[in-house]
Order: sequence, then structure tokens, then C-alpha cells
Amino acid sequence: MNKENRTGLTLVFTGNGKGKTTAALGTVFRAWGRGFRICVIQFLKTETGHWGEVMAAQKLDIEWYKTGDGWTWKTKDKVASMSKVLQGWELAKQKIASGDYDLIVLDEFTYPLAFDWLNVQEIIEWLLANKPSDLHLIITGRNAPPALIEYADLVTKMEEVKHPYNNGIKAQPGIDF
Amino acid sequence: MNKENRTGLTLVFTGNGKGKTTAALGTVFRAWGRGFRICVIQFLKTETGHWGEVMAAQKLDIEWYKTGDGWTWKTKDKVASMSKVLQGWELAKQKIASGDYDLIVLDEFTYPLAFDWLNVQEIIEWLLANKPSDLHLIITGRNAPPALIEYADLVTKMEEVKHPYNNGIKAQPGIDF
Repeated sequence: MNKENRTGLTLVFTGNGKGKTTAALGTVFRAWGRGFRICVIQFLKTETGHWGEVMAAQKLDIEWYKTGDGWTWKTKDKVASMSKVLQGWELAKQKIASGDYDLIVLDEFTYPLAFDWLNVQEIIEWLLANKPSDLHLIITGRNAPPALIEYADLVTKMEEVKHPYNNGIKAQPGIDF
Repeated sequence: MNKENRTGLTLVFTGNGKGKTTAALGTVFRAWGRGFRICVIQFLKTETGHWGEVMAAQKLDIEWYKTGDGWTWKTKDKVASMSKVLQGWELAKQKIASGDYDLIVLDEFTYPLAFDWLNVQEIIEWLLANKPSDLHLIITGRNAPPALIEYADLVTKMEEVKHPYNNGIKAQPGIDF
């Protein structure tokens, strides 16, 4: 693949509207079309969920890790969730520093930063020192901390204008998961 | 595929930030993972562009139409562009009414509506009468007209917080196209 003139960008998709993970997946689709080497690491999502995107990644042989434990806002075992997050970040560091990828997605990664389970300044300092200059990195999730927005090259805030949940329509397979 | 309990949604991704087409592509990725029958119609984009998403769609045998003619804000031949849009909408109507798809994407379709090349009220009346109730429809582009927002089930506004173009960084293959 031609890596000439490539500037490895850090993209952040944040805000409360639908489209953050979905836009990351769209970039995966686009990058896969170009033969990029891709790795997706999902934080705070269930390890056993059977999502459309996981099914697609399996079919396309895209590297995909789920490091979550079905965490929700009402999770009872915060310590276990934090432990999974720390493991996920260790995995992310290894993948990022390896130089083996063109695109890495850290899905839902803003939450541990917003909760201060991981220190955002330390993360950014690590990225500044270790992220290959030609690696594209995407971070998704609500409440991206200001320091992350400052560090990123591209930030889009997905603002919810209207959502079918509010009209009692359930999440739809293939659309929402 | 299990279509039980499916509510065919209309999703609109609008706003000035990166992520509109990309979120549509992410939904395509997710839906493809579930074996959905998918059709993408791109309006106002060049017919000859060699984009990562088109490469992916070709590899995955996803139906994909480019009805644009390289239109830009500075286009000289408005009549030709309008003619292509009308042809694109005829194609879209045929695909939507066919009942042959689970997901149809009308990419950049807000522009002809915003320019009033197509009448948004007529489009909505046509959709109300002809869109199968289990078909998911995604419409992307800036400046979604209020009537379209009213009609849609889900609307996210992608707000630009930060964009690398503003720092002189060029569009990146696999990320931007």
C-alpha cells in the first residue's frame, strides 16, 4: 500500500447522538477497501454480544477485540470494569506501538478517560511518544475530555436531533447493532 | 434473514462535520455483517472517483450507484447536474419501491432538496406512499430541510469541532475517501 504523504490522523467522534461508533465502522469499511491493516478494540462492551459489526469483521478477517464486560451505567462491579479497561489499554498500547497497522479504532474509549479510570494526560503523552506518524487512530464515545480534543486532528460532535427510542421504537438489528 | 419485529427507519445524518457519509458506510458495514440486502446511491459525486468505499463495495458485491457528475459548489453546468439528480431519484424510487432491499442509502441527497432541485414535500409524500415498512433508509448531507427532519425517525447533526483541513493537512486516503 502506498503510504507516501500519509499523515496519521487522530479522529475523535463524540457527542450524544447516534453515529460515533458507526462513523468509526464506516472508516473501517473505507480503509478495508484500500487494503489497510486494521485493528478495532472495543472498550466497555460485552464480550459475548453478537453484533452486526462483529459478524462483518469476522467475515472480513479484521482484527477485533472486545475488552468490556457488559458494563452499563448501572454496573455493579466497577472494579472488574476498571480492570478490563486497564487490560484493554495495555492491548491498545501494544497494537499502536507495533507499527503493524494503518488504522486502529479505540471504540468507547472516552468513557474511561471521562471517568478518570485512565489519566488523559498520561495517555496523550504516551501517544505523542509512541504513536507511529503514519498511523490513523479513531477514538469514539461521549464526553471526550478537552485535552483529548486539543490533541486530536479531527473532532466531530454527533448531536442528537431526534432518536426513535424517544418514540418507543426499539433498537434495530443491522442499524443499531 | 429474520425480519420479525423490524421497523424500517429513516435515518438522516446532517450537519457540517465529518461523519455523515462515514456513518452511513458504518451502517452498511453492520448491515452487511447481518446479511442485509443493501443498495447505495450516491448523488452529486463523481462517477469516476476511485474511493475506498467503492473499492470495498466492489469486493463485497454491494450494489452501488454513482449518479453524480463531479458536481462542486462551483459547478458550471447546473442543468447537467440537475438532470443527473433527477435520474438518480428515478433510480432511487425504483429501488425503494421494489421491496428487494433491507437498507438503502441515498448519499448526499439533502443537497438537491436544499437547492429545491427536488421538492421535499413531494419526496416525502412519495416515501409515505411507497417505502416498504420494513426498509431502512439513510439520507446524508448538509442542510437537511426541516420537512425531512420532521419525517425522519432518527436525525444526528454532525457538528465540526475541529478539522485537519484547517491546519493545512490534506484529505487522507482510507480516512476521507
